[in-house]
Amino acid sequence: MPDQPRSDATGVVVCVTIVAESILEARLVDDLAKAGALGWTITPARGQGPRERRVSEIEGGNVRVETLVSPDVAERIWEVLSKDYFSDYAMAAWTYEVHVARPDRYLGSPAPNPPAR
Amino acid sequence: MPDQPRSDATGVVVCVTIVAESILEARLVDDLAKAGALGWTITPARGQGPRERRVSEIEGGNVRVETLVSPDVAERIWEVLSKDYFSDYAMAAWTYEVHVARPDRYLGSPAPNPPAR
Amino acid sequence: MPDQPRSDATGVVVCVTIVAESILEARLVDDLAKAGALGWTITPARGQGPRERRVSEIEGGNVRVETLVSPDVAERIWEVLSKDYFSDYAMAAWTYEVHVARPDRYLGSPAPNPPAR
Repeated sequence: MPDQPRSDATGVVVCVTIVAESILEARLVDDLAKAGALGWTITPARGQGPRERRVSEIEGGNVRVETLVSPDVAERIWEVLSKDYFSDYAMAAWTYEVHVARPDRYLGSPAPNPPAR
Repeated sequence: MPDQPRSDATGVVVCVTIVAESILEARLVDDLAKAGALGWTITPARGQGPRERRVSEIEGGNVRVETLVSPDVAERIWEVLSKDYFSDYAMAAWTYEVHVARPDRYLGSPAPNPPAR
Repeated sequence: MPDQPRSDATGVVVCVTIVAESILEARLVDDLAKAGALGWTITPARGQGPRERRVSEIEGGNVRVETLVSPDVAERIWEVLSKDYFSDYAMAAWTYEVHVARPDRYLGSPAPNPPAR
């Protein structure tokens, strides 16, 4: 009985989740792609950040962005968020390790050209 | 000071998250139930998959499906996804271990009849 | 090559995810704040719970609430859910550890006044 699902080709990657104002979505996704992320999932969200700063229904609400990346790309995303976002915007970001099938799909070239949108 | 929340009856189960085109929702949920999942949460989503394949606003967008299951059921879900979905559809799936209250609720009979919908 | 993203100030906190009927949202968020949570993210959801109890399109659907908190606050949330919710409502809740930047933002005073809403 395995502790974690397996298949012919599974592996561990990092899931980075970012919650930010909707207005930042295009810029954020651009920065994810530049950092090497090859895909992302966006869900509408609302909420309240720490320090009672409202990050909710202002400006069309929030987006919750998830991307599965290599540890190196996650590190690069973290650096961009720290440098360009955290001090200026109400935003939450967290990472955790997940198991995926076909890990190669998430571990592509380290800094690909941003995908066309 | 505990490292993780506890209560009278907590335990570890596997959270399986799947992001797929909305058009696959009914079939996917059927397959989750057949694999032994007893419940799931669906949120609307959009996004872009690896290899610049757009999995976004086509066909009504994506769904993000989460289900909490035993490691055995997670393994079964993984096999179904590998066999019947991954090669044909733009889809992302990942698993991680989580702590739950009342773990028995998620660890029911290994292959129940699919719930009526 | 680090295993997990780092930055000048990262740390581990607990992500508590709760899926409940929308009608419970205001009360739930109040209870999270009373337990010491400083922020949360809410996404619309629908789904089906264990035991074939429908928790879906009834009463406006479900909400998926995520909050990043200290282990102590997570424990307190767990106690409130166990005492006041689990036996009365169709609800799923799970926790897992995540890495965050600026962990101090999530590890404020243990039981702050509930933020104004």
